[in-house]
Amino acid sequence: MESVSSLLGSIEDVGRDAVRGGYSRPVFSTAELDLRSWFREEAQRRGLDVETDRNGILWAWWDTETHDDAGRQGALVTGSHLDSVPGGGAFDGPLGVASALAAVDLLKKRGVQPQRALAVTVFPEEEGSRFGVACLGSRLLTGAIDADTARNLKDPDGVTIAEAARANGLNPEHFGRDDDALRRIGDFVELHVEQGRGLIDLDAPIAVGTSIIGHGRWKLAISGQGNHAGTTLMDDRADPMVAAAQVVLAIRKTAAATPEARATVGRIQPIPGGTNVIASRVDLWIDLRHPNDATTAALVESIHGQAQKAAAFEGCTAALTRESVSGTVSFDGELQRQLQLAIPGAPGLPTGAGHDAGILAAHVPSAMLYVRNPTGISHSPEEYVEGDDVDFGAVALADALERLL
Amino acid sequence: MESVSSLLGSIEDVGRDAVRGGYSRPVFSTAELDLRSWFREEAQRRGLDVETDRNGILWAWWDTETHDDAGRQGALVTGSHLDSVPGGGAFDGPLGVASALAAVDLLKKRGVQPQRALAVTVFPEEEGSRFGVACLGSRLLTGAIDADTARNLKDPDGVTIAEAARANGLNPEHFGRDDDALRRIGDFVELHVEQGRGLIDLDAPIAVGTSIIGHGRWKLAISGQGNHAGTTLMDDRADPMVAAAQVVLAIRKTAAATPEARATVGRIQPIPGGTNVIASRVDLWIDLRHPNDATTAALVESIHGQAQKAAAFEGCTAALTRESVSGTVSFDGELQRQLQLAIPGAPGLPTGAGHDAGILAAHVPSAMLYVRNPTGISHSPEEYVEGDDVDFGAVALADALERLL
Repeated sequence: MESVSSLLGSIEDVGRDAVRGGYSRPVFSTAELDLRSWFREEAQRRGLDVETDRNGILWAWWDTETHDDAGRQGALVTGSHLDSVPGGGAFDGPLGVASALAAVDLLKKRGVQPQRALAVTVFPEEEGSRFGVACLGSRLLTGAIDADTARNLKDPDGVTIAEAARANGLNPEHFGRDDDALRRIGDFVELHVEQGRGLIDLDAPIAVGTSIIGHGRWKLAISGQGNHAGTTLMDDRADPMVAAAQVVLAIRKTAAATPEARATVGRIQPIPGGTNVIASRVDLWIDLRHPNDATTAALVESIHGQAQKAAAFEGCTAALTRESVSGTVSFDGELQRQLQLAIPGAPGLPTGAGHDAGILAAHVPSAMLYVRNPTGISHSPEEYVEGDDVDFGAVALADALERLL
Repeated sequence: MESVSSLLGSIEDVGRDAVRGGYSRPVFSTAELDLRSWFREEAQRRGLDVETDRNGILWAWWDTETHDDAGRQGALVTGSHLDSVPGGGAFDGPLGVASALAAVDLLKKRGVQPQRALAVTVFPEEEGSRFGVACLGSRLLTGAIDADTARNLKDPDGVTIAEAARANGLNPEHFGRDDDALRRIGDFVELHVEQGRGLIDLDAPIAVGTSIIGHGRWKLAISGQGNHAGTTLMDDRADPMVAAAQVVLAIRKTAAATPEARATVGRIQPIPGGTNVIASRVDLWIDLRHPNDATTAALVESIHGQAQKAAAFEGCTAALTRESVSGTVSFDGELQRQLQLAIPGAPGLPTGAGHDAGILAAHVPSAMLYVRNPTGISHSPEEYVEGDDVDFGAVALADALERLL
């Protein structure tokens, strides 16, 4: 069995971000394409049969005879993603993929004879960091996003995902819900680095996911009057940056006053963005999460109202657009029970982070394993997993897969 | 005489910004280089002798015999710049250059025999929109910026101005104060679109500049703890975006409470800048202006203190860096008087906008002419000058130059 650390070590130089630190591996970037090639080679080296489906998801099959047989139980599928947020850590995504490959090694070493097919998957654009919609691969697979809507998603340079996909040998006309691929999945298990402090508090190396709290992204565009910073008197301004600042504070205050809510503005873009220019427009993105979907909706409505008010006070206007919303997802109860039997002592843990397993859960029994993060920091170069926990995670995943096979 | 409108028409497609609207013509971009070529051709077509000095300033000489004679009066120099802010208007810079070329046509048509040399100049990086320091060409020429400091200025992609200059045939080792070039200038007159509402209120098409109020740029870097937007509880955050929003509002409030102050945040950059990521750092730029230099200093100190406080309250830190500061500049009294005699009825007008004439004023008699802007909007695609005022400006500049030659 090749260790997960050595697998991760072989990609440690791919997509480093010299400016932000950590890694920037957006979907269809050179870095992410290099990681896909790495995955193909590692899977082939293990005798797995690799295919790219029409939504750009990679599937590495252990048992090619069984997986064509869509009947009976369906395949056991495990995997994660290789794309990253800008300046992300080394584990978010790759840990699950590398652990799945290592688990295959371990199952083979144990002489396990699968009773059903097993596949390791890599989902594209899980972070939504390039085209704005998180879990885009699993959303396309399940039809959670309309194929036309997806094809027209643009990156910050105005490139559509259809163009980027086509440049990389995919036919975007074939994007969309893939019932054949879905039918093949019997159960889906995703191992992922924990992105909060849950396992620190529980003092455990690994947990079984119970639910993903509902989350969504909205874009708020505040329009004012672009002008010269030196000649426009303070009283004559309609400065969208001032309104945006009010909105950022309103979001913080509203979320802080709502138990279990999390709301973030991590991205803001003044247009034109010159130091000596009053912006004509400021775009900002709101990431909002709450276990209760009705509360999420109420929070958005409240923030929208406060934004309208702040904009109007400054002589600006505000327009809110929904980019993606996912309701709170509970993972499959029976699958959770099997994982807990396979990994004695693993506690259950809800999470605020979205994952492809959360999208798939509406269609196939899905579950997750979280590996301890000693600082709770993620989406940052400081994200980390101790070597012992990395190894423990891969063994636990192998144990779980063995039980389920 | 070729009309200024037709000269501007010949460059109306250069550097259009499809995203922001208007023009983006940063120094040493393809667009700005195309404009330099256009200027060279237009100058040569008029029999002017064009040279690029060691700081990248273009000089088009009418009388090559006289300008080598550095003695006596020195040359009469007029001009402006061709670079723009991101998404700027068509007039800020090019109006002064095109009016100077048209004025040369007019002087020739009138049969004026210059008693001293006349040069039309184009200053690079007037806006500071690529390398962060406004009026960089005139600052280098006069030694107002140290050559080493200038050489190391970087654009947002990390390219130094030394690299960009070298790629365009300049030797950055020769950057720096140019006493020979300075000695050649007898008087400098810059015509520019007005960037505020002064001439609307005065109901006049053209004004003689009296002063430029002091202005400066500071960069504020607020550092916090980058983290996952979904898993980090509101209470556990040290989010620099929240502190930055407090600072934006503090700046607005402080400037609004100080008569004649103007303060703007038009540029803000969260790092890493992902929607689902709490930023680890937010950089923002402060543009601050006031006629009284001591007040400017006090305002910066106040804003810095408020930023420290807002950052500390959020568990963040704030570091302020001065990027450039220019004190309030009064233009040469005798030159103002001559311009007012040449353009009867032209009122005097102070401005909040910085210009190369303001940098040169510390070394050679300098003055400005402002042409009416019917909305007062500048640094925006909506910047505009009526055709009649464009023509009036060129004739007024010719009258002024004729009087001064």
